[in-house]
Amino acid sequence: MNIVLLGAGNVATHLALALKKNGLNIVQIYSRTQLSAEKLAHQIKTDFCTSPAGLKEADLYIYALSDNALAPVISQIKITKGIHIHTAGSVDIEIFNGKFENYGALYPLQTFSKEKEIDFQLVPVFVEGNNKHVIETLFELANSISNKVAYATSYQRIKLHIAAVFACNFSNYLYTIASELLEDSQLPFEILQPLIAETATKIQSISPYDAQTGPARRNDSVTIQKHLDLIADEKLRGIYAEFSSLIAEKYKSKE
Amino acid sequence: MNIVLLGAGNVATHLALALKKNGLNIVQIYSRTQLSAEKLAHQIKTDFCTSPAGLKEADLYIYALSDNALAPVISQIKITKGIHIHTAGSVDIEIFNGKFENYGALYPLQTFSKEKEIDFQLVPVFVEGNNKHVIETLFELANSISNKVAYATSYQRIKLHIAAVFACNFSNYLYTIASELLEDSQLPFEILQPLIAETATKIQSISPYDAQTGPARRNDSVTIQKHLDLIADEKLRGIYAEFSSLIAEKYKSKE
Repeated sequence: MNIVLLGAGNVATHLALALKKNGLNIVQIYSRTQLSAEKLAHQIKTDFCTSPAGLKEADLYIYALSDNALAPVISQIKITKGIHIHTAGSVDIEIFNGKFENYGALYPLQTFSKEKEIDFQLVPVFVEGNNKHVIETLFELANSISNKVAYATSYQRIKLHIAAVFACNFSNYLYTIASELLEDSQLPFEILQPLIAETATKIQSISPYDAQTGPARRNDSVTIQKHLDLIADEKLRGIYAEFSSLIAEKYKSKE
Repeated sequence: MNIVLLGAGNVATHLALALKKNGLNIVQIYSRTQLSAEKLAHQIKTDFCTSPAGLKEADLYIYALSDNALAPVISQIKITKGIHIHTAGSVDIEIFNGKFENYGALYPLQTFSKEKEIDFQLVPVFVEGNNKHVIETLFELANSISNKVAYATSYQRIKLHIAAVFACNFSNYLYTIASELLEDSQLPFEILQPLIAETATKIQSISPYDAQTGPARRNDSVTIQKHLDLIADEKLRGIYAEFSSLIAEKYKSKE
């Protein structure tokens, strides 16, 4: 199976490396940015192009593009043969409808940064297709790069994406807040790493509901007030107050 | 050195196990709840009491109590000899001033749940004392149970505690939100575990600022709006909107 990969960002890069590693044949990388296209093509030893007009014929086209680049790029594609899939959490596969006969999605539920290696076999991958042929092809492909493959409709996928934004993107932003608070006090961020690691590890064996600790869980209003008094930034103080009140509310009635 | 441990909650339990494991001599557990006192005392094979009047003489008294229990319990203590320390992130050691000659704090920066084992050697421990004798004793004690011991003033400790609330307690609450969102869609929480693990692992090698991914980082307002439209709960929608706008703001000017 010959694959053309459109995109050279975080998801495209990790997907390209996983496909290559498992012996799949990526015949071309497309990116409108020549530097990015060239870099990723070089990394996995293949060709690249910077215009949709230059795409090769292939069995599978994977659009690992940012959500708002999808429609404009699709509209420029001349080749209608092959299977066309995207990797977006929150885009319906019907974005391909009317243009291609075979289409779908392959969504890896993970946070990807180019600077950080990842074991793709552990990444849950959700596939969807508009017909049996696409679905079978995508299951086979996904199973070759991941041990955790499941079917998800476009509606389930966006629900997964929303949950992932809370669990991952917003948690990471809380780490940024914490690092800035420590910086203000000339304390190194490394101090928090064991705590962050344990917080994430705990919920592999107990539910996040049971894993909750801290002043708000204990409804310790004296400590919460001490903290609010020491947070200079108004927006951060707002987040602290809001989260504390939601957590206190959740546990108050149950203790 | 003989130790009396006041408290039988999450911190007291993990501290008791770590002290015991490293050969330290806990001669008594105090808790006003007999069941808790008895259980922890049994676990580490020592005595217990349920009234401050019943405390034994010892070299060190560790008050691993909730913040608002500290002052009432201290006021009932008859024995003024020995070193008296608490384990609270946000309580000044001067809470002991006027009553005891030797006092301080030993603060383990970690999230503790009774149901979850922990390697205490990896827990950063911060000590503070009101004189050289206390400080030396606490460093020796802390070094016997942890590989990461440092001095922190009461002011630094509360700053650490605030950062920890953001990085740990609030992140865990985000996991709870995510698990509830998935539950609404009949999807199992396990699906998110690799993502949560990777989110926490990433910031051990790259900064949280660089590790940020997701729609808000890309300033992808179309996806953000799709998500907002699908979040039924008003408070959750508020959190989603607030975090997305803060993240987008932070990265907008830098890209």
